[in-house]
Amino acid sequence: MKIGILGTGMVGETLGTKFVQLGHQVKMGSRTANNEAAAKWVKVAGSNASQGTFSDAANFGEMAFVCLKGAVFLDVAKTLGPTVCAGKVLVDVSNPLEFSNGTMSLSICNSNSLGEEVQKALPSAKVVKTLNTVNCEVMVEPAKGGDPSMFLCGNDADAKKKVTELLKTLGWRDIIDLGDITKSRGTETMMHIWMNLFGLFGNPHFGFKVVRGS
Amino acid sequence: MKIGILGTGMVGETLGTKFVQLGHQVKMGSRTANNEAAAKWVKVAGSNASQGTFSDAANFGEMAFVCLKGAVFLDVAKTLGPTVCAGKVLVDVSNPLEFSNGTMSLSICNSNSLGEEVQKALPSAKVVKTLNTVNCEVMVEPAKGGDPSMFLCGNDADAKKKVTELLKTLGWRDIIDLGDITKSRGTETMMHIWMNLFGLFGNPHFGFKVVRGS
Repeated sequence: MKIGILGTGMVGETLGTKFVQLGHQVKMGSRTANNEAAAKWVKVAGSNASQGTFSDAANFGEMAFVCLKGAVFLDVAKTLGPTVCAGKVLVDVSNPLEFSNGTMSLSICNSNSLGEEVQKALPSAKVVKTLNTVNCEVMVEPAKGGDPSMFLCGNDADAKKKVTELLKTLGWRDIIDLGDITKSRGTETMMHIWMNLFGLFGNPHFGFKVVRGS
Repeated sequence: MKIGILGTGMVGETLGTKFVQLGHQVKMGSRTANNEAAAKWVKVAGSNASQGTFSDAANFGEMAFVCLKGAVFLDVAKTLGPTVCAGKVLVDVSNPLEFSNGTMSLSICNSNSLGEEVQKALPSAKVVKTLNTVNCEVMVEPAKGGDPSMFLCGNDADAKKKVTELLKTLGWRDIIDLGDITKSRGTETMMHIWMNLFGLFGNPHFGFKVVRGS
């Protein structure tokens, strides 16, 4: 499959590398077509890796991943215009994190979510929110986080099916479809306890498993 | 131990009944000393059960449980005055839930929490936030929720130790001390995904287990 990665940070690099290893063609996008971090990644990742602008990466494949910090993508989406990603699966793995005086908060939450705003910004894309409840190392290797549950949500059933199949190839076993894109509120707000536990454990190799009784 | 229960709803009744079964003396408090629901509960629960006002219940034991809906306790606390619960362990198991048009939101969240507001309202109490991430049936029987992790937080180490010991007698095994009372933000915001899963599963017999990898 052809996959676009929007963002050149640690999350984009980790996902992009894994997708190349799984045999996919991956284009990493950034504000400029010749971004240094992306160029470095392409060199290491090999012939199935390429780079371009955000728009190039978004248009490249049938699926694109939003791997930008916080709500940055909403600004990027404005420059892309509403028709980019038309009909494509846009996987949002980001969280609207803000840090002030060492304390984390969410710039969007409670009665709204970043996932919903991404869908509003690109109404013709099929936005699926997932992977945002774990660190990127766990995203591509669930066992590294103790095999937690993985959540996904979005308005398009077929898009969620495609993403679920891809998640399985990453090693995810317990994948829970939460419903429409408003369900991003639940997974994004889990960042509060995630950051808390990250501080307690001193490493990001954990996750949340939904357990059920009688 | 003598335990006060603030609230006569399902949560208060379930916890009160379990504590009586475990051999504790329990006083259920409400706005009036002769509340009907409390009287009914006392009759069924037996000789170790009694009732009174919120103030009576708060002053009764060394530990009191806040089992009121949403942020109702903050109004109750104003009528009680700041010296009630002085030096006592006040266990807040409630969440600041609000429902509008069938959608849940939190009346306090993100940069504040109900746990913090309860501590501010009764500064001389030792507030411990816990049990608020599961349904009351799971609170008193963790196996019924698949033996999830239980979180607690609060500013007083000794109070958290006492609550941890009590949680163990309820069957809780994996108890995680998240830190000070500001950590209530993390557990209260989990209500978003909790409500989502409750709707999906059709029953409240589940929970979140923190799993860790390598």
